Amino acid sequence: MRDLDERFLRRALQLAERARGHTSPNPLVGAVLVREGRIVGEGFHPRAGEPHAEVLALREAGELARGATAYVTLEPCDHFGRTPPCSLALLEAGVSRVVVAAREENPVARGGLARLRAGGVQVEAGLLEAEARAQNEVFFTVQKKGLPFVLLKAALTLDGKVAAPSGDARWISSEASRRVAHAYRQWLPAVMVGVGTVLKDDPALTVREPDFRPFPLMVEPPPLRDPLKVVLDTEARTPPTARLFQKGPRGEPARVLVFVGEGAPRARVSALEEAGARVVALPREGGRVDPERALAFLLEEGVDGVLLEGGPRLAGAFLERGLVDKLALFLAPRILGEGRGLAEGFRVERVAEALRLRLARREWLGEDLWLEAYPEG
Amino acid sequence: MRDLDERFLRRALQLAERARGHTSPNPLVGAVLVREGRIVGEGFHPRAGEPHAEVLALREAGELARGATAYVTLEPCDHFGRTPPCSLALLEAGVSRVVVAAREENPVARGGLARLRAGGVQVEAGLLEAEARAQNEVFFTVQKKGLPFVLLKAALTLDGKVAAPSGDARWISSEASRRVAHAYRQWLPAVMVGVGTVLKDDPALTVREPDFRPFPLMVEPPPLRDPLKVVLDTEARTPPTARLFQKGPRGEPARVLVFVGEGAPRARVSALEEAGARVVALPREGGRVDPERALAFLLEEGVDGVLLEGGPRLAGAFLERGLVDKLALFLAPRILGEGRGLAEGFRVERVAEALRLRLARREWLGEDLWLEAYPEG
Ligand SMILES: NC(=O)c1ccc[n+]([C@@H]2O[C@H](COP(=O)([O-])OP(=O)(O)OC[C@H]3O[C@@H](n4cnc5c(N)ncnc54)[C@H](OP(=O)(O)O)[C@@H]3O)[C@@H](O)[C@H]2O)c1
Ligand SMILES: NC(=O)c1ccc[n+]([C@@H]2O[C@H](COP(=O)([O-])OP(=O)(O)OC[C@H]3O[C@@H](n4cnc5c(N)ncnc54)[C@H](OP(=O)(O)O)[C@@H]3O)[C@@H](O)[C@H]2O)c1
Repeated sequence: MRDLDERFLRRALQLAERARGHTSPNPLVGAVLVREGRIVGEGFHPRAGEPHAEVLALREAGELARGATAYVTLEPCDHFGRTPPCSLALLEAGVSRVVVAAREENPVARGGLARLRAGGVQVEAGLLEAEARAQNEVFFTVQKKGLPFVLLKAALTLDGKVAAPSGDARWISSEASRRVAHAYRQWLPAVMVGVGTVLKDDPALTVREPDFRPFPLMVEPPPLRDPLKVVLDTEARTPPTARLFQKGPRGEPARVLVFVGEGAPRARVSALEEAGARVVALPREGGRVDPERALAFLLEEGVDGVLLEGGPRLAGAFLERGLVDKLALFLAPRILGEGRGLAEGFRVERVAEALRLRLARREWLGEDLWLEAYPEG
Repeated sequence: MRDLDERFLRRALQLAERARGHTSPNPLVGAVLVREGRIVGEGFHPRAGEPHAEVLALREAGELARGATAYVTLEPCDHFGRTPPCSLALLEAGVSRVVVAAREENPVARGGLARLRAGGVQVEAGLLEAEARAQNEVFFTVQKKGLPFVLLKAALTLDGKVAAPSGDARWISSEASRRVAHAYRQWLPAVMVGVGTVLKDDPALTVREPDFRPFPLMVEPPPLRDPLKVVLDTEARTPPTARLFQKGPRGEPARVLVFVGEGAPRARVSALEEAGARVVALPREGGRVDPERALAFLLEEGVDGVLLEGGPRLAGAFLERGLVDKLALFLAPRILGEGRGLAEGFRVERVAEALRLRLARREWLGEDLWLEAYPEG
């Protein structure tokens, strides 16, 4: 029974995954209807404004939904938004049992399970909850902190350097690692760097291999388009000839957003605008663009996730403010000795105060170690 | 056949391991004599001046050695030293086949296999060679470079820090890691630190758990005694009250060797001598104790292996000079940001010139990663 429940719930997680990159600001949701051991309906939420996963699965099942078990990755919503509540739809269709992975925490949408239970439906929650929460970590993080989800990505030597003293960083990690690292750009809607990295590395920040999916749940390729490219650049020093202005994979103009400090030199701002950038001036904090304001601005624009691609100063500023939600680190079997650290300006006096990480992925890519980790506490 | 050969050779490797910590300057050697699939004699070289492994195995086998196969971890010696050559002993005993793991490279001892072959014995070499060379890496390294084997050990955060900016390093790694890390002190005859670490951490540098053996080949506990404690300390700043003067596990006085620079303050040298240290003055190099001279001095005293326990300046000095033969790193899931790096003063301008490592061990101790690695090239 539990084995079967898990199998169908996994199927629902996979269905949900199909829409990755499209549902913002809504979560990914998948649903499977099962009657007498057979799948009679499936659905996933394809994008905001379109029907919820449960509704699509019910449509497919039709009359067969009566007496069926519904497997849903997230607690069915209980509020009238753009669509009527899914809890009601499941009740009306005569579903007899509902198995849910993750509970809804948003007070506005919450209550689906309670309504179902009150309506005589057998309700279970919590199976594969960790997987379901991980699948929607962007969504849950935004809900909780009111800022976009920030994933800090870096390639490090075993002694923690991201670049040689000269600033040279080509290449710390292996080709296999860089391939995986690039795939993160398809997973989040925006990529962010500091102007230091633009000046040193001149990265294009493009998507390279749209068909490469190293993440187990990523069943279909995400949309083929470059992320929004964001630069934190107090004095507008980004060169208008930078490679990040390169056209996207279908020849479309790059989407570049440069956050400058209020009072940044006008001529340079204009030059960036002429090169195609959107330039947004923000109040300074300690003389520099305020990271939190930049994130808040992005969320208002519908950007719910940011891939922070460096360098050390930006990483330090974000870590210092507790703005990093997840880390993806690629550790390469080299020693640099002197060089640039992962997070400059992030400082605690004692080891006991260091940022503790919970490791969620530890995978070897040849001799490189690929880690995903969450800051604790 | 090959399976059987491998089994008996593994047995010989295990026998050899019994004497770890005792054979210097000789290598560890184990031998097994097999006749009609049955072990008829076993031996290992117990310590310098005592019989070689082959001779002990032959003694045990007696007449049964005739027509037997000899499995030996190292090519039998062919020279008259304190004992007659083992090649001759095997020939005289009438052994018909000899299977050897690692070939001898020392021109003085070499030639055993050739003599056996000339005597009509069937000879094979190279099976489990990597294991056999690893077992005697101290011996082979000394033979090749004429200096003691140096193992650099450190506990690092994921961003490569060995201490917070204040110098606090308690504790970077978990208790499980520290237990394993301590075991290295039983494996090598000396442990070395810079005076910086003495002043900051005041480590006792003792052996803690003589019965703990995390290394797969370590079948029996090594001798229960603290390593020789070596400090590089140009100006004799080591406090005579330092914890490293603590008595050993059986109440015996600590063996402390302090290398100072020529011209170090006499009063402080005397105070150290009174505390029980042996103080040796060496010419300076760039104002400091010359690491290479310190190593050469140790080898002359019969110390063939040194555990380099930090800190960053000493590690940098040794890495810069290519004096590190192996690294044991414990990576803990923490981020410190600012802090002390693994190897200060070790500097290359480009990533392509970074020290490349070959990873020989990758083991998780809870959430800490235990690596053993060899510098390449
Ligand atoms: N191995 C890797 O994964 C990796 C990844 C990326 C970069 N890197 C390396 O990192 C190096 C560049 O690092 P970096 O530290 O110089 O550059 P960075 O972190 O990319 O950019 C730092 C600059 O961003 C600007 N900035 C704006 N607002 C800021 C804020 N709130 N906090 C901090 N900075 C802010 C600052 O310049 P203004 O004051 O002018 O605004 C600052 O100097 C290069 O050598 C590159 O190769 C390595
Ligand atoms: N996490 C770990 O695994 C670990 C391990 C050990 C230490 N640590 C930390 O490391 C920190 C201490 O590091 P450190 O760099 O200050 O101390 P260190 O490397 O232990 O000692 C450096 C000192 O050794 C002396 N020295 C003599 N000859 C030298 C040579 N050829 N090259 C370099 N130094 C030579 C120098 O002082 P003189 O010029 O006076 O001779 C130098 O200042 C502490 O915070 C400690 O907690 C961490």
